[in-house]
Amino acid sequence: MQKLKEHKTFGGVTTFWSHESRETKTPMKFSSFVPDGPVKGCLIWLSGLTCTEENFITKAGAQRYLAEHQLMVVAPDTSPRGLQLPHEHESYDFGSGAGFYLDARTPAYDQHYRMESYIVRELAPLIFDQFGQAKLGIFGHSMGGHGALTLGLKYPALFASVSAFSPIVNPSAVPWGIKAFEGYLGSDRSLWQQHDSCELLRSGQRHPRRILIHQGTADEFLDKQLKTRHFEEAARSVDQDHSVVYAEGYDHSYYFIATFIEDHIRHHAGMLS
Amino acid sequence: MQKLKEHKTFGGVTTFWSHESRETKTPMKFSSFVPDGPVKGCLIWLSGLTCTEENFITKAGAQRYLAEHQLMVVAPDTSPRGLQLPHEHESYDFGSGAGFYLDARTPAYDQHYRMESYIVRELAPLIFDQFGQAKLGIFGHSMGGHGALTLGLKYPALFASVSAFSPIVNPSAVPWGIKAFEGYLGSDRSLWQQHDSCELLRSGQRHPRRILIHQGTADEFLDKQLKTRHFEEAARSVDQDHSVVYAEGYDHSYYFIATFIEDHIRHHAGMLS
Repeated sequence: MQKLKEHKTFGGVTTFWSHESRETKTPMKFSSFVPDGPVKGCLIWLSGLTCTEENFITKAGAQRYLAEHQLMVVAPDTSPRGLQLPHEHESYDFGSGAGFYLDARTPAYDQHYRMESYIVRELAPLIFDQFGQAKLGIFGHSMGGHGALTLGLKYPALFASVSAFSPIVNPSAVPWGIKAFEGYLGSDRSLWQQHDSCELLRSGQRHPRRILIHQGTADEFLDKQLKTRHFEEAARSVDQDHSVVYAEGYDHSYYFIATFIEDHIRHHAGMLS
Repeated sequence: MQKLKEHKTFGGVTTFWSHESRETKTPMKFSSFVPDGPVKGCLIWLSGLTCTEENFITKAGAQRYLAEHQLMVVAPDTSPRGLQLPHEHESYDFGSGAGFYLDARTPAYDQHYRMESYIVRELAPLIFDQFGQAKLGIFGHSMGGHGALTLGLKYPALFASVSAFSPIVNPSAVPWGIKAFEGYLGSDRSLWQQHDSCELLRSGQRHPRRILIHQGTADEFLDKQLKTRHFEEAARSVDQDHSVVYAEGYDHSYYFIATFIEDHIRHHAGMLS
C-alpha cells in the first residue's frame, strides 16, 4: 500500500491510498478516514457513476460523525483505471467509473472488472490487515447504493450493517442496469438476478438487520433509474426489515447525502458496536 | 441574476448564480446557502487561489452550522472569467483564479480585475436587494483570508465580523503577494499597503470586534507565504483585538477548514445577532 496524501481532519486522518489489486490486475485507489482514539469498526462506502475515491471523502461531511461514533471509513474507486478495453471510456454509465460492484463475465471485461471480488475478497481483508478492523458495515450512493444492497444481502456475515442513499434497487429493470448487465454479464438473465437487490430478496437472500435507505423526492433519476418502491415491495413481501425515508425536495447530489449522512453513520454505529 | 442550479441542503437551499457584473464587466458567478426560516445575517466567504464559487460550498460542510445559527452565506468566484488579458491564464497565482480582492491599477487589468469594488460595492448591495440581508460578516481562506482581513479592516462599518483560515496576512512581504501586487498595482508600494492587513493595522485601520484566525501548524505555506506571526505582532502593537488559533498538525486543505468551520460560524453568529 502506498500512501498518496494525508490530511488531519476532525482530530483523525483522511488519507488517499494506492495498491496493486490482485482482483482487477490494476492499481486501485481508495480514501480512508481514521478517527483519533479507539475504533469500533469500518464502513465501506461505495460511490456512484463517474465518481472516484475522492467524492465521498471531500463532499459528504462524514468525518465529524465518524469521529463522534468511533468509526473509520474506506471509500474505493468505482472501477479499475488505466486500461483500454473495448468501449471502456465511451460513456459515463459503463466501463471506467461504472464498475457496478460485480464480477464481469464477458470476454472483454472478465479479466479486470471484478469489483465484487475486489470489495469482498481483497478490500475487506486489507482493512483487517492494515487497520485491524473486522467489524464492517457497507453503504453507498446510487450505483454504490446498489452495490451496498446487493453485497450486503449476499454477504450478511461479512457486513453487519447496510444502508444506501438513492440506490439503483432493481437494475435488471432500468436503463442504467440493463446497459451495464448486458455489457458485463451478457444476455443470461439468471446472472443478472445475482446483482439485483429486488431479485436477491425474492430468491431468499436476507440481511438480519434493518436496512436503511434515504431517497430524495426531487431526485431526477427516481422514476426511471432508481425505482425505490420496487425494493419496498420486495422487502415487504419477504419480511426483510427495512426503513425507507423519502426526503421531501432533496435531489441526487452530495448536498442531499451531507444532510442525512449523520443518520446513516448512527445507523451503522448502533449495529457495529 | 440567473439561477444556475439549486439543491436542498439541511432544510435550506444551496444555489449557484450568475449575474452581469458592473465592476468586472464580465459575468460573475457565486454560490449561496440560505437556511430555512428566519435569517439573521449573511457571511461572505472569499476563496483561495485557483478556487471558484464551488469549493467552499461543496467541501467546507458549512451548511449544517449556518442552518443552526440562522445565517446565510455567499461565496463568489475568485476573479473575472472569460477574458484574454496578457498573462492572465499562465499561472495559478496570478490572473484568473487569483484576483486578490483588490482593484487593479495596471493598464492590462484595471478595466476588469476590480474584485474589491465587486465585493464591497456590488455584491454587498446585491445581498441586500436579493436576499434582504444588511448584516454582513466576512471570512475566507488563504488569498481569501487576505481578502477578509483587508476588506474587514477597510470597511468595518460594512462587515460586522471578520475571520480567516490560513490567511496571507502580509502579502507585500511574500512571493504570492509580491507577484500579484506588481502585476495588478505596479511598483508604487504605497498602493500595496492598502491591501496588506499588517500595513493597514500599522496605518491606523481597526476592526471594532475580535478577529478570529485559524492556522494549521502543518500548513506547507505557513513559513513562506502566510507568516501568521506578522499579523499577531502588528495587531498586538496597535491593540487590535484578535485570536489566532494554531491547530496542531493541520494543513492548508478544506479538511482543515471543515474541522473548524463551526467555530468560525459561531464567531460570526455571536457578532451578527
